Amino acid sequence: MKSHVDFIKRTLALAIKGKGSVEPNPLVGAVVVRNGKIVGEGYHKFFGGPHAEVYALRKAGRLAKGATLYVNLEPCCHFGKTPPCTDLIIKSGVKKVVAAIKDPNPAVSGKGFSALKKAGIKVASGFLINNAMKLNAPFFKFHKTGLPYVISKWAMTLDGKIATRTGDSKWVSGEKARGLVKSTRSSVQAIIIGIETALKDDPHLLAEPVTRTPIRVVLDSSARLPLSSYLVASAREFPTVVVATTTASKNKTRNLERAGCKVLILRHITIRAILKELARLGVVSVLIEGGGEVHASAFREEMVDEIMVFVSPKIIGGGNAKTPVEGDGVSKMAKALKINDFTVENIEGDILVRGYL
Amino acid sequence: MKSHVDFIKRTLALAIKGKGSVEPNPLVGAVVVRNGKIVGEGYHKFFGGPHAEVYALRKAGRLAKGATLYVNLEPCCHFGKTPPCTDLIIKSGVKKVVAAIKDPNPAVSGKGFSALKKAGIKVASGFLINNAMKLNAPFFKFHKTGLPYVISKWAMTLDGKIATRTGDSKWVSGEKARGLVKSTRSSVQAIIIGIETALKDDPHLLAEPVTRTPIRVVLDSSARLPLSSYLVASAREFPTVVVATTTASKNKTRNLERAGCKVLILRHITIRAILKELARLGVVSVLIEGGGEVHASAFREEMVDEIMVFVSPKIIGGGNAKTPVEGDGVSKMAKALKINDFTVENIEGDILVRGYL
Repeated sequence: MKSHVDFIKRTLALAIKGKGSVEPNPLVGAVVVRNGKIVGEGYHKFFGGPHAEVYALRKAGRLAKGATLYVNLEPCCHFGKTPPCTDLIIKSGVKKVVAAIKDPNPAVSGKGFSALKKAGIKVASGFLINNAMKLNAPFFKFHKTGLPYVISKWAMTLDGKIATRTGDSKWVSGEKARGLVKSTRSSVQAIIIGIETALKDDPHLLAEPVTRTPIRVVLDSSARLPLSSYLVASAREFPTVVVATTTASKNKTRNLERAGCKVLILRHITIRAILKELARLGVVSVLIEGGGEVHASAFREEMVDEIMVFVSPKIIGGGNAKTPVEGDGVSKMAKALKINDFTVENIEGDILVRGYL
Repeated sequence: MKSHVDFIKRTLALAIKGKGSVEPNPLVGAVVVRNGKIVGEGYHKFFGGPHAEVYALRKAGRLAKGATLYVNLEPCCHFGKTPPCTDLIIKSGVKKVVAAIKDPNPAVSGKGFSALKKAGIKVASGFLINNAMKLNAPFFKFHKTGLPYVISKWAMTLDGKIATRTGDSKWVSGEKARGLVKSTRSSVQAIIIGIETALKDDPHLLAEPVTRTPIRVVLDSSARLPLSSYLVASAREFPTVVVATTTASKNKTRNLERAGCKVLILRHITIRAILKELARLGVVSVLIEGGGEVHASAFREEMVDEIMVFVSPKIIGGGNAKTPVEGDGVSKMAKALKINDFTVENIEGDILVRGYL
């Protein structure tokens, strides 16, 4: 006989299939169970599309009557891009809803459960809470702190360099690893890079699929980003935000705006201030792609939640070659920031280390 | 029915048990097989001790008569620290000897086989050649090129640093990883470090077991190694070699010699020249433990055979913090030195990457 936990596990497994397509929405899976057997299941497939509950209840059809609905997040009870799920659930005739965890958004948290209870549906929650929170870590952080979830990503050689002494960085890691970065971009709503990286690499910062390309943010206090750069040239197709300070030439910022960039003027650039601005735009998670000074600021300000580090099995040397995290750094090794729960994968010849701060 | 290859595999598995104890001798295992069954086996256990064949034949006793002896390296036929194995083999009455591979030492290669054949013993060789050569890579390289086998080792943070901006490096990796370095030291006959590392860390460079501590070599063109350093203070117990140039003050080199160090004067310090000198002292393999300039020289001179890199899941930052391989480095990423056949292990929380040049 399967337990609540078993079916919640199934909702988590379904939910993750939406990764890279549903963000900034949370990943959600749903399962309809009748007499211990799954009679319908589904997951939230793409941003703006039907919620997981819709697919699951649709599949179950008349079998939903008297059944139990499992879901990894409290069902919504408000009109967003789609009608409230609670209405549909009530109509379906399920007699019980089991959710892993409450919605973290204080504006709606608990209200979905209330609506269901009011309609005479039994409600239970609090199963695999940690897994459920980890699956939607950005969503939970965003609603708890008002700041986006931050992933710092870099690719370095086995001797700790992100470019040769001449600044050449094409390429540190292999195709598969670079593909994984592109698909990771599709799950965030903004990418942050520094102006040095923008000048040196003239990067595209596109996602895979390209239609999911997030806002590309360049920290550029003096507004030096060239109008001829790819980021500016493609700004009307894929949003580019230039973060400058009040000291930047008005002429330069005006030209960037005319070219289609959004220019954000801050008195003093901090990662926190930028994250706050991005949160206001609905950005729930951010990928920081360097260079070393930007990463250093993010770590110093304690804004990083997760790291994604590709280590390529090659040696380039160079006392002046750039490293992934620069700035001042800590003075004592004992004060190093510890990466927790790290995992190591082999991505077709590149070593990928992921972990949490 | 087991094949020659199966029994050679067994000799390799036995041989490796001597790692860290028998070097600079090769790792050797031996198996006596009678009617398809193992009746005696053994391995070379410690430098200066009996060879593998002695243990295996002793175990087999009278059952050796008419049996086959398997061994992963051609049996010796000369007096070294112990009498020639071929004499013992002939006396034992075995009718056949199967060896993975010939001895690479041109002075003795093939002579062991000849002695056995002359005594009427059948000889076969050429089984699992690659595995047999890899097991004793230092021994094979030494006899082929006249140079020791070189392992470059470093420990770095996940952001590619070997010390903080202030030079603090205690500790990059955990206890288990540092223990593994100590036991690796017991399998080489020399360790090379640069004077900067010696000055900054005042390292001990002891092996585990400490009695197997290799020669500690410091590249120190101006003979700056302080008499108060551990390396000098312990030089009478564990040999310390200071490699200086002709420009070093005679006074300083004399003091180092008086304190028990051996001073080697070269006109110009190169890794190759030092390896040549070490080979003359019977050093078959060397561990280079940095810092960045020494590693850079070793890679630039193409003297490195193997790398052993500990990556600790921590971030320290620092644009001025030292990295594992410095020097000029290559100019283009496409010219990076590729690490082949790399493996990744988790050493109690540290990531160990090993590979070959």
